[in-house]
Amino acid sequence: MDFKLTVAGTASAMPVPERSQSAQVLSVHGRLFLLDCGEGVQKQLQRYRIPLMRIDSLFISHIHGDHVFGLLPLLSTMGMLRRGQPLNIYAPANFGPILKFFLSYYGEGVDFEIRHIPLKMKEPEVVYETKSVQVSAFPLNHKIETFGFLFREKEPQLNVRKDVLERYTFTLTEIGSLKRGEDVVREDGTVIPCSAATYRPYEPRSFAYCSDTAPFPELAQWVKGVDLLYHEATYLDALADQAAQRHHSTTLQAARCALEAGAKKLVVGHYSSRCTDRQAYEQECRTLFPNSFAADDGDVFDIPLVRGE
Amino acid sequence: MDFKLTVAGTASAMPVPERSQSAQVLSVHGRLFLLDCGEGVQKQLQRYRIPLMRIDSLFISHIHGDHVFGLLPLLSTMGMLRRGQPLNIYAPANFGPILKFFLSYYGEGVDFEIRHIPLKMKEPEVVYETKSVQVSAFPLNHKIETFGFLFREKEPQLNVRKDVLERYTFTLTEIGSLKRGEDVVREDGTVIPCSAATYRPYEPRSFAYCSDTAPFPELAQWVKGVDLLYHEATYLDALADQAAQRHHSTTLQAARCALEAGAKKLVVGHYSSRCTDRQAYEQECRTLFPNSFAADDGDVFDIPLVRGE
Repeated sequence: MDFKLTVAGTASAMPVPERSQSAQVLSVHGRLFLLDCGEGVQKQLQRYRIPLMRIDSLFISHIHGDHVFGLLPLLSTMGMLRRGQPLNIYAPANFGPILKFFLSYYGEGVDFEIRHIPLKMKEPEVVYETKSVQVSAFPLNHKIETFGFLFREKEPQLNVRKDVLERYTFTLTEIGSLKRGEDVVREDGTVIPCSAATYRPYEPRSFAYCSDTAPFPELAQWVKGVDLLYHEATYLDALADQAAQRHHSTTLQAARCALEAGAKKLVVGHYSSRCTDRQAYEQECRTLFPNSFAADDGDVFDIPLVRGE
Repeated sequence: MDFKLTVAGTASAMPVPERSQSAQVLSVHGRLFLLDCGEGVQKQLQRYRIPLMRIDSLFISHIHGDHVFGLLPLLSTMGMLRRGQPLNIYAPANFGPILKFFLSYYGEGVDFEIRHIPLKMKEPEVVYETKSVQVSAFPLNHKIETFGFLFREKEPQLNVRKDVLERYTFTLTEIGSLKRGEDVVREDGTVIPCSAATYRPYEPRSFAYCSDTAPFPELAQWVKGVDLLYHEATYLDALADQAAQRHHSTTLQAARCALEAGAKKLVVGHYSSRCTDRQAYEQECRTLFPNSFAADDGDVFDIPLVRGE
């Protein structure tokens, strides 16, 4: 029942020796989601012991090179490893020709189906759903079409309280009703209200990925109350002009978004190649939003399960 | 006056954590030539302190992913670094659409000219020439169109021996003649033969790059007498069947080529992902060709200048 983010790369467009470019892996109940694919992502996954073959699907924010140059090699390797399961890639529409180029040039031996789900929403929209997780995509504000993603664990079925189970003898149908959130009404008129008889076994967890973007008013609303917010912070506050010019964010802008969203924790990355002091990013964020972390390659942010009752 | 090979990647198609994929840099008198561009080549160059902006031209053996996936990111970075000098890429004809794709998708901000020189020769042909070096390309024997490259320092101008300079008083014209290899014939009938009056200041050096290839009879002749021969050895001898099936070579096949060519030194690489013991490759090569080395990422093979006189 994990809900765990591994930050596989924290560099921005200009390559630096000590960091890799954007790539993150979210593991939800053991199912792996890869967000962006900077060059060398496979090596990073190997380094952090994340099995390539357990990747369920890919979420690509935009097609700038530092977010996709690792994708073609990754798909090639999945082919060599004989992946059978189809791979869904949620990416902007202009990702289509990149995939087409890949398949026409490097598609030999790639025997699994690759499905590109083009993103074009103007506000949050659910794009992926399983029994345990729901993913929405929403537009960001960058130079080219760019999307963020919000992963939410689904509301779990309710548990019936032990003392209630001891007090009443339930039929399976009655238990089912309670778990679904319905009151039990018996033929003799007894009412066992769901609210008193059950509890949420755990709090559903959430993670939002916002890379790359200039600040814009709707964003905080769209990621309202998220447990873990990843928001790019390419620049320190002193370079706010440069951030604006390049449709990026500063530390303080990322922290302000976390604050307005009422996020529980903020993680920043996508540092400019001039960044030689990650701690300075962290400190600046913390002046506005204390629970901020400037991620390093390989950092893991685990959101533990908070159990009810 | 260096002539130095840096092996930046020794892995083959399947990525492994401890090696990078094919890329080598030959430095000739400070001019850098990049041979193949596996994923992550920029990071490797940074690691080995090879300045990206000093790369003169690129030589691509073939378009398999493990030899070119690092190229698009590299060109992007050169654009960001504002390279002005045109870049020649010597590569098979089927590299054309890859470059076209790059320029149409990632060409914005790439302000330098990229010239693709398509290779299609059936036997060695000079493709590049400066005052100090000449490069020939020749076909290899792989699954798809693949080329090898031979770098030869040019024959230097002759030096006039000190004792001869002391014995005669030469005019500048006479010195020029001797340096070009001509005898001096004076009006009084004196003949100063070039062969006795001069010496070669140094032995021209050479390097051949042969990746990926199954053995074939002409190869040893084409790289005859080379100082440093890089020849792929994807497999140990025990996997000769697999090598044949995949149009690759074994240790012993690489060593046999070096032996038949009369090469001075053999370097092998492009190890199968099953290779956990590089020393085993080296030992097998040495049973046939003692001066063999199984390269590791980052190994440097420096061919020192052998001065005449």
